[in-house]
Amino acid sequence: MIVAGATGFAGALAAHLLWRHPQFELVAVTARSELGRPLCALYPRYRVPLALELLEPERLAGIDAAVVAYPHAAAAPTVGELRERGIRVVDLSADFRLRSLANYEQWYGEHPRADLLGEAVYGLTELHREAIAGADIVANPGCYPTAALLALAPLARAGLIADLVIDAKQGISGAGRVFDETTHLSMAGENIVPYKVAAHRHTPEIEEQLALLAPAAGDRHKPLAVQFQAHLVPLDEGELASCYVTTTRPVGAAELRELYTRAYAHEPFVELLLSGPPGVLEVRETNYCRVFAAADAHTGKVIAFGAIDNLWKGTSSQAVQNLNVMFGLPETAGLQ
Amino acid sequence: MIVAGATGFAGALAAHLLWRHPQFELVAVTARSELGRPLCALYPRYRVPLALELLEPERLAGIDAAVVAYPHAAAAPTVGELRERGIRVVDLSADFRLRSLANYEQWYGEHPRADLLGEAVYGLTELHREAIAGADIVANPGCYPTAALLALAPLARAGLIADLVIDAKQGISGAGRVFDETTHLSMAGENIVPYKVAAHRHTPEIEEQLALLAPAAGDRHKPLAVQFQAHLVPLDEGELASCYVTTTRPVGAAELRELYTRAYAHEPFVELLLSGPPGVLEVRETNYCRVFAAADAHTGKVIAFGAIDNLWKGTSSQAVQNLNVMFGLPETAGLQ
Amino acid sequence: MIVAGATGFAGALAAHLLWRHPQFELVAVTARSELGRPLCALYPRYRVPLALELLEPERLAGIDAAVVAYPHAAAAPTVGELRERGIRVVDLSADFRLRSLANYEQWYGEHPRADLLGEAVYGLTELHREAIAGADIVANPGCYPTAALLALAPLARAGLIADLVIDAKQGISGAGRVFDETTHLSMAGENIVPYKVAAHRHTPEIEEQLALLAPAAGDRHKPLAVQFQAHLVPLDEGELASCYVTTTRPVGAAELRELYTRAYAHEPFVELLLSGPPGVLEVRETNYCRVFAAADAHTGKVIAFGAIDNLWKGTSSQAVQNLNVMFGLPETAGLQ
Amino acid sequence: MIVAGATGFAGALAAHLLWRHPQFELVAVTARSELGRPLCALYPRYRVPLALELLEPERLAGIDAAVVAYPHAAAAPTVGELRERGIRVVDLSADFRLRSLANYEQWYGEHPRADLLGEAVYGLTELHREAIAGADIVANPGCYPTAALLALAPLARAGLIADLVIDAKQGISGAGRVFDETTHLSMAGENIVPYKVAAHRHTPEIEEQLALLAPAAGDRHKPLAVQFQAHLVPLDEGELASCYVTTTRPVGAAELRELYTRAYAHEPFVELLLSGPPGVLEVRETNYCRVFAAADAHTGKVIAFGAIDNLWKGTSSQAVQNLNVMFGLPETAGLQ
Repeated sequence: MIVAGATGFAGALAAHLLWRHPQFELVAVTARSELGRPLCALYPRYRVPLALELLEPERLAGIDAAVVAYPHAAAAPTVGELRERGIRVVDLSADFRLRSLANYEQWYGEHPRADLLGEAVYGLTELHREAIAGADIVANPGCYPTAALLALAPLARAGLIADLVIDAKQGISGAGRVFDETTHLSMAGENIVPYKVAAHRHTPEIEEQLALLAPAAGDRHKPLAVQFQAHLVPLDEGELASCYVTTTRPVGAAELRELYTRAYAHEPFVELLLSGPPGVLEVRETNYCRVFAAADAHTGKVIAFGAIDNLWKGTSSQAVQNLNVMFGLPETAGLQ
Repeated sequence: MIVAGATGFAGALAAHLLWRHPQFELVAVTARSELGRPLCALYPRYRVPLALELLEPERLAGIDAAVVAYPHAAAAPTVGELRERGIRVVDLSADFRLRSLANYEQWYGEHPRADLLGEAVYGLTELHREAIAGADIVANPGCYPTAALLALAPLARAGLIADLVIDAKQGISGAGRVFDETTHLSMAGENIVPYKVAAHRHTPEIEEQLALLAPAAGDRHKPLAVQFQAHLVPLDEGELASCYVTTTRPVGAAELRELYTRAYAHEPFVELLLSGPPGVLEVRETNYCRVFAAADAHTGKVIAFGAIDNLWKGTSSQAVQNLNVMFGLPETAGLQ
Repeated sequence: MIVAGATGFAGALAAHLLWRHPQFELVAVTARSELGRPLCALYPRYRVPLALELLEPERLAGIDAAVVAYPHAAAAPTVGELRERGIRVVDLSADFRLRSLANYEQWYGEHPRADLLGEAVYGLTELHREAIAGADIVANPGCYPTAALLALAPLARAGLIADLVIDAKQGISGAGRVFDETTHLSMAGENIVPYKVAAHRHTPEIEEQLALLAPAAGDRHKPLAVQFQAHLVPLDEGELASCYVTTTRPVGAAELRELYTRAYAHEPFVELLLSGPPGVLEVRETNYCRVFAAADAHTGKVIAFGAIDNLWKGTSSQAVQNLNVMFGLPETAGLQ
Repeated sequence: MIVAGATGFAGALAAHLLWRHPQFELVAVTARSELGRPLCALYPRYRVPLALELLEPERLAGIDAAVVAYPHAAAAPTVGELRERGIRVVDLSADFRLRSLANYEQWYGEHPRADLLGEAVYGLTELHREAIAGADIVANPGCYPTAALLALAPLARAGLIADLVIDAKQGISGAGRVFDETTHLSMAGENIVPYKVAAHRHTPEIEEQLALLAPAAGDRHKPLAVQFQAHLVPLDEGELASCYVTTTRPVGAAELRELYTRAYAHEPFVELLLSGPPGVLEVRETNYCRVFAAADAHTGKVIAFGAIDNLWKGTSSQAVQNLNVMFGLPETAGLQ
């Protein structure tokens, strides 16, 4: 097992989780800078003593899996190269999340390895567990789609979503190892900041997946346009998706409870709340997603919340969950 | 001038602002506890040396105005008593915000002084400036309605709101001088917490005011049911209302800009942004509201943001703004 | 294994660590309030499903160990009762930390079970490992003494401390599950607050332990009066002791390095830094203590830093470390 | 009035305070980057509409004063040039704070304008008010020296300081508009970080000023070596100096109170506390320094605390206080 791109928040956490994993063996962490430094010098909390090295695919004999934590567009060529050497990959970038090449090109530009799009499986474990088990390329979901789709999947499967607003809030770690006004404590610390108004790239990812969940073929052809808005709030790790659903028909509390219980009663990492909404602190540094849904008699809408740790279930621990599935291990291995 | 109920966050800040006000003279701060202690012992930042005393209306000769900072239901009798002694009141509670007694009873219970409802003016200064000038009882708005209504008023006046979701986020000061799990730094500090799901009392206040703004009489009879949801995020002061508007007809960027510019070009305390949304830090400890609106071509919706300091424009500095209007002073006196 | 007093921060974390411990079996969590509620309802992060119950010592057949997390003076009688039933106890309170009854009475008042003082072992694992292994009552150290003593032990053993100032900083979790001005985010959040000036009860604990470490018998008879000062700073978990040592003779960098390396080279939970001081985030939610010492050529003093998580190594994970030692398990069991 | 170097935190705040000042007229803000942008685009909270421009001294006819907010070594040449054009300067850098050129060279390197050293006055207003009134170059103190010297001056003047440890804590704004690991909320937010161990450049500044305050000439020749240590803690603005004084003779509570009361009874910006130490929130965004001193009967030492806002009294508002003194205005003008 290797982690390619371990200097960013996502790659470093993936390395940490794999280093302490009882079954996987992390043998290398790669980067394009900080070469030779042990990862624990950059991330003291993670205590991974491996030194950062350049990724040299030709030296990867014996490696069976990799987590790739590169920016979009940079990831796809490396994923392809690893794949061609027989290495199974969980890709943390957006490069293989969208099924539609047109969607990718509209939101991200040209795709470096469009030929591999059909091969990749969307790695929201709870939604695509079986396909992930057999996949060679798993496209780890965005953090916002993870929280939103787990909150919405029971409604989507029942064909109940007529219109949808998602208002998401995330801690500053969501901005990554980026040093600017967005992350400076004096500027971000007592602030609430909406960003990418009407333009967040997680939108098509949510729309595609909701369409796939919808029951009728007809729905898939004209996917719902989702109103998605992200905000940064002053904490480190944590993310909440508040989803406001105009339903296709009236939905009451009893039906809601049944839909959600049926969906999540046996999920090891989804904690369904019945009496009130979750706070993100409840899932901090875990792979859990907490979900709560309520019917609003006043408006007729359904409100559904999904709370995760954006770096864990939203990124790196879900990557490990997917690797567990890919390699036939207990899904919770190394995650509890 | 007196502040009745000065031990809470709202009353204490009102006292601070009035103490340093160039034209008003604050002569007493009252409370039911901490009697005899100078207010600055409880709130060192505010440096108001007046000692807390019991409110004894019979001793208020010569007082011409009061800010009442009591909880709802407790406020109305005192407001009434002060009013009967000829004292003009800005009431920070919810007791006189709703025009409809039925609405009040549904959300708050029995009204202690329903007889005064018709006399009170809703104190969102920018919307009701003229009525406030002549009012004896001004019902200071809730903080969420302040941010939301300023973000939405131009759309409401144009009859453009067909459906509405408001997702609001607020700092912990919004919970007030309350000591529990909600405000403990170890529990609130790295958290995002939705509260009062489908049940926040600011909902009818927003609905009533939007109905009043609507152009056609018909609209007022069947007011829009607003989906309003509040969240606590880990900062002290600051509040953002993110408003998602399904419009009655397509609205483009140019029309939006014109509507908002016309509404706010001459408002001293509304800062209209044109290039991007506000962060709440930009208005911290000020009476400003920053507003931004955008049309989303993808969904057809309009997104409007209102950012305020929940304790300032959301509560106490707006009370001072109203007092300025009531007493014929420059509206910005003591607020810049 | 039981945890008595599991509703406070320390007891709840001890329960969490023991619940997930690979060798110990946590069978009960007790409290005087919240009876019948699962601990995970109070502390969702800890996911301990056991319901809180009253401590009824007569029903404890088969229990071989307990963590007692009561306030001082309340703890001693329960510790005694458990001890008399053959249960080995780690006591998180101050009741058995001081060897000198006179010291206890001066700082805490009358001792409810002074007869047991001689039996208790001071549970700073790194300093008293062998005695802990055979002890029936282990007095878990205060968090400040833990950080300070680990930073200072190599100097103390070498008889190098002539005078000592300890300036300690701690996150708000150090105030515990207490709801008041000290912990309210709006009051604590942008604050730095010294407390208990010249009066902190951890002072005699540090003084006694430093005297025990000193090489010459003479030193023990007239222990050093330590200047200890605590501060609350706005984070959740984390604690730093900055120790300023006037030395009995000049000490250079090489000697310092040798003293500290010799002391800590083989300690599993002490991370000795050589190039710069630790930040507390590096040890958050771990049982590690990070130590750094430097000689200041300008003043001739030595500065030593100890960084811990006040709730973990400072309290509950050190309790587990001690339990591991008491029951002959690997010292790191359940702590990595 | 101009502010040279207005893009950093200190210069921007100085511009804000001068822009709203009732007597001074701020006519220009200069910088080497962001030219043409209004300062309020960079610092929305400050609402200074002036556009940033290059400093062109030849165009400064009619300007009588400047605040220079450059890094050390960069400041001195500009200060000299402005001085030569008859402009009185408050310099926020370290370039003119030290009286001893040898000290400067040891801690900062070569001095670009050593010829002006003798002309500059150290701008801790409370200590050098009279000299400041007549000065053309005022060297605004470092933030740590401001807090520490105000806490210590009464003891220093009485010749009571035999040995001294200063442990200082500061919010992240102290790191300035610097974007790196030090200021990223995810790295700084739940952290306490000591920095510049045994090497902080504010040390000689404190030592020189304490020597100047000492009563006997002899003391001045062999200044005390001060143990000064700085820490970053996770808030925005705020700074506390905790000073531990070994006294030259026993000092009791009554004498302490008399010394401090005599020193500060008439100071408009020093708030002497008598019953307990200050928290930094009490002085946030003010020019106040709160001071508290206590005698520790246990150790015989005196503990003195100074709490300020590092950007206000620690930097920019003290610059305005000095300008008020230099131009014969009420010392509190524009600062209350």
